[in-house]
Amino acid sequence: MSEIKVLSSAMQKNNEVAARNRALFAQHGLAVVNFISSPGAGKTSLLERMGSRYGATLGIITGDVQMTFDADRLNRAGATALQIETGGTCHLTASLVEESLKKLDLSKLRYLVIENIGNLICPSSYDLGESAKVAVLSVTEGDEKPAKYPSLFTRAQAVILNKIDLLPHVTFDVHRAEEDCRKLNRDVRFFHTSCKTGEGFDELYRYFEGLR
Amino acid sequence: MSEIKVLSSAMQKNNEVAARNRALFAQHGLAVVNFISSPGAGKTSLLERMGSRYGATLGIITGDVQMTFDADRLNRAGATALQIETGGTCHLTASLVEESLKKLDLSKLRYLVIENIGNLICPSSYDLGESAKVAVLSVTEGDEKPAKYPSLFTRAQAVILNKIDLLPHVTFDVHRAEEDCRKLNRDVRFFHTSCKTGEGFDELYRYFEGLR
Repeated sequence: MSEIKVLSSAMQKNNEVAARNRALFAQHGLAVVNFISSPGAGKTSLLERMGSRYGATLGIITGDVQMTFDADRLNRAGATALQIETGGTCHLTASLVEESLKKLDLSKLRYLVIENIGNLICPSSYDLGESAKVAVLSVTEGDEKPAKYPSLFTRAQAVILNKIDLLPHVTFDVHRAEEDCRKLNRDVRFFHTSCKTGEGFDELYRYFEGLR
Repeated sequence: MSEIKVLSSAMQKNNEVAARNRALFAQHGLAVVNFISSPGAGKTSLLERMGSRYGATLGIITGDVQMTFDADRLNRAGATALQIETGGTCHLTASLVEESLKKLDLSKLRYLVIENIGNLICPSSYDLGESAKVAVLSVTEGDEKPAKYPSLFTRAQAVILNKIDLLPHVTFDVHRAEEDCRKLNRDVRFFHTSCKTGEGFDELYRYFEGLR
């Protein structure tokens, strides 16, 4: 069997499991978001703040190559967080998510965020059963990222421009970044957030609440 | 054939090609560095500055999922840059590098930097034939990254802490990041650079020149 055939059969299996996850989420009326970003864009800090708003009704499955830093931080913030250690894999799969769902009481949750592995490429191709993929892009990363990583920015229903408080200290053209996103997906939503100042979170919460 | 066997045979083929690349580099007395980082850590800006120092004797093979922004920027800076578009793959392979070497006149180069795809995970496993892997970590990404991505930080011979000028505006414990790197590789070298102020480049140049 060729390498391509093996990968395409793995992708087909992933889609079947994603459909099962999606049905389970619908059954519990859960809004499920798949957070995708580079390492260091601030996903965990965003989720910490959301944890203090939604408390234990916010479930978080956080993927990591190694270590449980993030789940510890998120549980301290009040959320119901669970860590998946992938041991080297560069993206989460629907099966890894399905396995962790067994450890969560979904009837107690209203929202579930799947914090994908920090990587702009591989995670974008895998359906996990989510309601929406949300890209998190820190303004320190450069405004050309949407054009350079079209696979993610075509699929992301919303883009969070994070660390917006650092804008005066970096070269980042918000207009260019947003226009490049719109070329890939004209219906994309934007949020400008700062975990330092709290800017932009009210709009983000309204978006989340609208997904249910 | 199982997926694991397919991948392991792909890795074996990669190592064979990497050995051929390494022999070719040695024949030309070239110092070859494999730059690995997250998207937005500042690899291209570092290389722009190096281009203005070394001019056309600095060869650069820059990997990207799509677009030729980076090669254009680097050629304008005076270096001899060539772009590889991987079309979705999340890391460079020794074969992709071998193909591009045919388009470069190696006898005119003293240094070659391979700017890998922006990804902390996948690229770290692939030998390209380089003299050294160098990790580039921007201080805006968080000081826990070395502990979270041990596959890269175990293999990196040097770590460039970049955007060091932003240190006053972010929470980043340089001591913690460096200690975590040393736990994985006690011989690791550190450089603190800012493309804005030029800080740290003299030390970095000395390191590069010592690799020849």
